[in-house]
Formats: sequence, C-alpha cells, structure tokens
Amino acid sequence: MVKLIALYRKPADAAAFDKYYYDVHIPLVRKVPGLRKIEITSITGAPMGEAKYHVMAEMYYDSMDAMNAANASPEGKAVFQDVMKFAADVIIPFFGEVRA
Amino acid sequence: MVKLIALYRKPADAAAFDKYYYDVHIPLVRKVPGLRKIEITSITGAPMGEAKYHVMAEMYYDSMDAMNAANASPEGKAVFQDVMKFAADVIIPFFGEVRA
Repeated sequence: MVKLIALYRKPADAAAFDKYYYDVHIPLVRKVPGLRKIEITSITGAPMGEAKYHVMAEMYYDSMDAMNAANASPEGKAVFQDVMKFAADVIIPFFGEVRA
Repeated sequence: MVKLIALYRKPADAAAFDKYYYDVHIPLVRKVPGLRKIEITSITGAPMGEAKYHVMAEMYYDSMDAMNAANASPEGKAVFQDVMKFAADVIIPFFGEVRA
C-alpha cells in the first residue's frame, strides 16, 4: 500500500480555507479513480511549541502504479489544478510506502 | 480517534538511522500504553521536486486524554528520551484529530 500525503501549513484565513477544503476540494479528491481510502487529520497542536501545520490528508492506493495512474487521470489533474488555486502557498505534498 | 505524528526530515546517514529506528526505537514505541495502532510510512518521493522527509510514524490513540496519558507514562517518556538521542535534529512532531 502506498499513500500520497498532503500536509498543509497554517493558512492565513483558516475558516475560509476549511470551507473551501471540505466543501469543494475533498469532494474532488474522492472522485479520483483507484483511491482506496482517505484519512484527514485536523492538526491541533505539537508536543513542543505550536504546530506549524493545519491539516493533513492521506490518500491510499494499492501501488505506486495505481497512484501514478490516479494522478494522471482527468480527476487527478482536476485535484491538482484545484489545490494550486487555493493552497499553492501552504501545501507540502509527498508520498511513500506504508510499512506497518 | 487522535494521532501523534512524527515526521522525520532526511537524516545525514539514512542507513544508520533506519537500523536504530526499526531495531531500537519502534520496539519502544510499541510498548506505550493505550497505543491503538502505529502506521509507518517510508517516504519515497514528492510530486514536485524531491521529498524533504525520510519517514513518518503515526501513533493512534482513543482520545487526547489517552494520548496525554501515554506520553506521561514511563514508556512514553522513554520514547521521548530515545528520540532525542538519535533524531532531535530531524524530528517534526505534531498531533491532531482524525476526521475521516
């Protein structure tokens, strides 16, 4: 299993960010073919100091091939174009292999 | 459900880091009381450019109270002391509420 992780730094306007994120962006993400699971975590703090992050989304796929196909699909491209509209300055995207 | 997220930047010596992490550190994490699940992701890349991160561990607890009790337990303190020994310069810890 692999996952694409979208970690977001704190946006300037968290309420406006959340409204767009949950009402518009996440419904687009759910349409992406091959997506097995999505887990969204609202970041509330850090053990040392304040958390620099606002939210983290994890999109699970069966394999790297499935993730790459998802990203290359029309629905995947729509997600990418959408995120660049509202979160280009705060998103940190990366991916990896789930080990345990 | 809440989770404590330990995101690690790329260490200077990834092989030495991994050996200590999987052989010593993770066994300590698994002893922490109240831990419901741990998911470890080996970061392999990023959609744009190179990933700055090496590994991410997610420790799931039933509630913030359970997570705080876990961190305050002898086993939780041992995990914290251990991580400061080998990863103080690369760990980014934060926590949040799992929404979906």
